[in-house]
Amino acid sequence: MTAQTETQPYSATGFAALYAEIQQFYARHMHLLDSGAADEWAADFTEDASFSVPTLPAPVSGRDALASAVRRTADANAASGEQHRHWPGVFDIWPQEDGSVVVHSYTTVYASPRGGESRVHRVCTCTDVLVRQGGRLLVRTREVARDDLR
Amino acid sequence: MTAQTETQPYSATGFAALYAEIQQFYARHMHLLDSGAADEWAADFTEDASFSVPTLPAPVSGRDALASAVRRTADANAASGEQHRHWPGVFDIWPQEDGSVVVHSYTTVYASPRGGESRVHRVCTCTDVLVRQGGRLLVRTREVARDDLR
Amino acid sequence: MTAQTETQPYSATGFAALYAEIQQFYARHMHLLDSGAADEWAADFTEDASFSVPTLPAPVSGRDALASAVRRTADANAASGEQHRHWPGVFDIWPQEDGSVVVHSYTTVYASPRGGESRVHRVCTCTDVLVRQGGRLLVRTREVARDDLR
Repeated sequence: MTAQTETQPYSATGFAALYAEIQQFYARHMHLLDSGAADEWAADFTEDASFSVPTLPAPVSGRDALASAVRRTADANAASGEQHRHWPGVFDIWPQEDGSVVVHSYTTVYASPRGGESRVHRVCTCTDVLVRQGGRLLVRTREVARDDLR
Repeated sequence: MTAQTETQPYSATGFAALYAEIQQFYARHMHLLDSGAADEWAADFTEDASFSVPTLPAPVSGRDALASAVRRTADANAASGEQHRHWPGVFDIWPQEDGSVVVHSYTTVYASPRGGESRVHRVCTCTDVLVRQGGRLLVRTREVARDDLR
Repeated sequence: MTAQTETQPYSATGFAALYAEIQQFYARHMHLLDSGAADEWAADFTEDASFSVPTLPAPVSGRDALASAVRRTADANAASGEQHRHWPGVFDIWPQEDGSVVVHSYTTVYASPRGGESRVHRVCTCTDVLVRQGGRLLVRTREVARDDLR
């Protein structure tokens, strides 16, 4: 669990602006992922980002490795004829004193076999640390947990 | 795919206002749909709106035809004892120079048979073009794709 | 159904601030619920709050009773090895003249058995009346309906 210290430097209007920016960020991020735009998706992470998931023995680090992981999954889905759809939401955001934002969210992954029945594939929780670089938000760290592997 | 040219005429506060308005629009729109309020739902489209789905041979055009299509589905669900629930989200919005807004989103449809197990019925993507008329947002075009029919 | 009279005292910016605050409120509220933080979750209700669900013969009233109900469910899920995940969304908000806010929303509950397949557990609709006390939003009444029990 990432340490979090909530600060309240935000007015109601400022908080709303940040909340909308974060929702838009995740929406475009997941649309990129699901359409197989691996490099554009990886560009949403910092150069030295770290991504931890329970199914990998060590965190994935850096944009190239992240994009490669996405391409492998996209190839596997293409081979099996399944469309995966990542749905992020339930964003609990914690702005930090250093300007970063800790985001606790849920992600459901749906799977749809071609010509078959869509289903829930995974239910995950996600803790990201977002930082601002060059005016835009980027993911510095991501920790994903799967409900079925608790 | 609808052509999209992103513009940035929005301040962070203006973007947040638009993003909230769009979320509220889709929420009320889908509550109307799921409660069978066909005419009120159809009033969220422009008079000459076009709605394309993969299961119809031609786009549905105009509010009367849209409302009729909803009533047919509502009747079928009532006959089968299933409650459908349309869940829109993951809104990736692209304000356009002409004042319209291209909205890429996902929609999951859940089905719940009376006394039975709820399930995922459909996973869809949706591309809308929203325009403002008389101060409120309306759908001018909607293109829906189903993940199981790709 | 809770009576609702829509008022429009909000500017676009003020509406966005309220909409973001409500989304953040529900996100943290459900994260508390799913992590078993029963007392913190119950503190999101007013002291005299009323919670109605179709599976209980009478409304649950008051924070202690609410927290106890959550603890019983958490114990049952721990015993069965299932992780439940409450996903609120599709918020249709109706600010009222007295400062309260009627919120119509959907909630999907996912269930993930340890080592098994995640699934949709429940699809619910939720009508809350939120009031502001001491600067923060609290739930005064909640009415939940289940799609499978209609």
